[in-house]
Amino acid sequence: MSGGYDTDLVTRLETNLDDLSPELTGAVMEKLLAAGALDVWFTPIQMKKNRPAVQLSVLCDEAHTEPLADLIFTETSAFGLRMEKIARLKLERRFQTVATEFGEITLKLGLRQGRIIQIAPEFESCRAASTRTGQPLKSIYQAALTAFRP
Amino acid sequence: MSGGYDTDLVTRLETNLDDLSPELTGAVMEKLLAAGALDVWFTPIQMKKNRPAVQLSVLCDEAHTEPLADLIFTETSAFGLRMEKIARLKLERRFQTVATEFGEITLKLGLRQGRIIQIAPEFESCRAASTRTGQPLKSIYQAALTAFRP
Amino acid sequence: MSGGYDTDLVTRLETNLDDLSPELTGAVMEKLLAAGALDVWFTPIQMKKNRPAVQLSVLCDEAHTEPLADLIFTETSAFGLRMEKIARLKLERRFQTVATEFGEITLKLGLRQGRIIQIAPEFESCRAASTRTGQPLKSIYQAALTAFRP
Amino acid sequence: MSGGYDTDLVTRLETNLDDLSPELTGAVMEKLLAAGALDVWFTPIQMKKNRPAVQLSVLCDEAHTEPLADLIFTETSAFGLRMEKIARLKLERRFQTVATEFGEITLKLGLRQGRIIQIAPEFESCRAASTRTGQPLKSIYQAALTAFRP
Amino acid sequence: MSGGYDTDLVTRLETNLDDLSPELTGAVMEKLLAAGALDVWFTPIQMKKNRPAVQLSVLCDEAHTEPLADLIFTETSAFGLRMEKIARLKLERRFQTVATEFGEITLKLGLRQGRIIQIAPEFESCRAASTRTGQPLKSIYQAALTAFRP
Amino acid sequence: MSGGYDTDLVTRLETNLDDLSPELTGAVMEKLLAAGALDVWFTPIQMKKNRPAVQLSVLCDEAHTEPLADLIFTETSAFGLRMEKIARLKLERRFQTVATEFGEITLKLGLRQGRIIQIAPEFESCRAASTRTGQPLKSIYQAALTAFRP
Repeated sequence: MSGGYDTDLVTRLETNLDDLSPELTGAVMEKLLAAGALDVWFTPIQMKKNRPAVQLSVLCDEAHTEPLADLIFTETSAFGLRMEKIARLKLERRFQTVATEFGEITLKLGLRQGRIIQIAPEFESCRAASTRTGQPLKSIYQAALTAFRP
Repeated sequence: MSGGYDTDLVTRLETNLDDLSPELTGAVMEKLLAAGALDVWFTPIQMKKNRPAVQLSVLCDEAHTEPLADLIFTETSAFGLRMEKIARLKLERRFQTVATEFGEITLKLGLRQGRIIQIAPEFESCRAASTRTGQPLKSIYQAALTAFRP
Repeated sequence: MSGGYDTDLVTRLETNLDDLSPELTGAVMEKLLAAGALDVWFTPIQMKKNRPAVQLSVLCDEAHTEPLADLIFTETSAFGLRMEKIARLKLERRFQTVATEFGEITLKLGLRQGRIIQIAPEFESCRAASTRTGQPLKSIYQAALTAFRP
Repeated sequence: MSGGYDTDLVTRLETNLDDLSPELTGAVMEKLLAAGALDVWFTPIQMKKNRPAVQLSVLCDEAHTEPLADLIFTETSAFGLRMEKIARLKLERRFQTVATEFGEITLKLGLRQGRIIQIAPEFESCRAASTRTGQPLKSIYQAALTAFRP
Repeated sequence: MSGGYDTDLVTRLETNLDDLSPELTGAVMEKLLAAGALDVWFTPIQMKKNRPAVQLSVLCDEAHTEPLADLIFTETSAFGLRMEKIARLKLERRFQTVATEFGEITLKLGLRQGRIIQIAPEFESCRAASTRTGQPLKSIYQAALTAFRP
Repeated sequence: MSGGYDTDLVTRLETNLDDLSPELTGAVMEKLLAAGALDVWFTPIQMKKNRPAVQLSVLCDEAHTEPLADLIFTETSAFGLRMEKIARLKLERRFQTVATEFGEITLKLGLRQGRIIQIAPEFESCRAASTRTGQPLKSIYQAALTAFRP
């Protein structure tokens, strides 16, 4: 099924880390994103011998699979890596700027067959406005959503 | 391998939610189950920029994949959805009623090649008995298990 | 309030570990229990700089507080340790043996003002029976609970 | 310090559950809330012998401490319960109704020294509107926030 | 892609446990490892009706899939099991012994195309040295790493 | 007890967040650290109505308690905040620079009664060296530890 959604195929790389310090695990997230990962996340897991471990998950496209696998082996303690191909359904993305009392804010819109079904203030745009004005981030978000006209 | 188990194929839909309030995330679980999902669960994950996020997982059959994908895009903040086909091994299910001091309770039995290998008191049946009698749920469970004769 | 419960005061020691490998964190649990801790547990937490870290919690009595604090500083990467006094309500504990088709099993009973309100098969006793008979642990538990007569 | 906030003292009851089925753990949450708990939550923890356990936490006022402790001992597998007095800082709460295209929605306002610093759509009010209109819960929330005039 | 890595195919078995006591869940980990699982881990998940549940994940080769599936059905409360084939990238493994002030310690080396990219002290070897000498496990690890010469 | 450790008293502020987007929760961590918090962490918790929520914990000294409480009320969705005084045991901290093949690295030492019992490479110092040399962070850590002479 695709149901009118955009689709693509991505790779999910996963490994269970039970002998890497959280400090180093945290640092590898940034390196993976900088090297082209589409998404990176950690899941707390529980491994043998009472180890409170971490599952590292990385989503990437075909071209980035090998360099990101290399990076994981280089920067973490992994001896093995699981690799799966996964289909994705996606909304079409558009960006739109709205004027608010806190300045201009970017919104990220998600469309299915031309119809807007997702409206999300863009984080870095809101953070910049919050820093610039000293106002709470949640107020910026709310102002951006209120300013939106389809 | 199937090893004498029933088997089927299901779809697992997954998405990482990093900009939806837990209040709304909680509410979508009920909507997905009401719309025909076989199972719905949340996993705490950690995403970029120190976000304590949630992975939403939904298991469903072929016929429900598209309506449930639509529901996730409509009710959550997702811009994308991962979609995988997964084989399942299953026990044959039977239900049986047992008489206990707390009234009749339903048991769910799991069979492999005709042999019972799982016996589980049915939750809603036990909850009703607990409400009716004012007795602890754990006592109802225990009474139901003790009353079982194969 | 004590409401007819036994009460005591315990110490809870806690520290956030963001630069210790899960392998070493797992090993410290055993060392703490062997050194007299009443309970030891890990909670997955998320610390700064995207670190998937672990909170170590230890419950102990007054006499064990200092040696266990020493052990935490020696075996983990902690530079600091939080220390709180906490009141506990407790059931009176009794042990009772029951005869089952899998041999004798020990039950742990919890009483409030002489009345039994908790009945739990003792884990190591059940595990020994499971190993001895080759039967599933869950069957042993169920047999032990069924065999109980107050 | 109180800093212009309302303050009160509450009790936090906590216990680590390593031998209660999640089905029964889930059910006790409802019972505790129905019996007057201010808040109830679960934290995934990792206990000895590789047990993926759960910490149950309950917040309540003085008058409810004993009946809720009784309920925990009756409905869970706990043999002990930690009990702490904790100070709270609180915003003053007010409720206000706003008219939206989805009908009237209740907002919960939080005030410090007369100034509104929190505005939250009331969940059950939004859920009712979502059910009534068939519109996504997130749209109801957004409409309620947009309709607010201080 | 294989990028110079060793590769193989493994099976991942998964099931969501919402009616098994953590005590029994913990015990099944050992049984699965003893029966030939390559890896076993638990992930805290949140299921319907407020249940703080656990996802059990098992990695195994083809030959162990059926006996391990049988074991899961026998020892847990599962009525169903998800089964996926997953590709793995692996480093070549070698073991090397180093002499330290705490005695001989085994190191596990990971190689890609003949080049060492992973060096990890072997846990049981370090634990034995820690027990033998009474020194902290972290000191043993550090000594082993320092003693390594490629 | 103090057992030869430095001691102090800190405040722990805690609140359960069930209606704040993870994006905003992540951003508040940085703001709290920038405003003087000693430590900030998130714990995944499970609240009523199937909400996958987050507990925010902040450690601070007396002088920072009120401004940090204000910040939490301003930047999150909290209507209440728990506030506890907690004793801490601490090691004395010293910093020392070591020369490695990757340049100079700072080590953080922890002392009890003049004796070094903790040696930790300083994260930002190692990260700078990793960026400067292009070498894996784990190699920098290992080199710094190996270079240490008490």
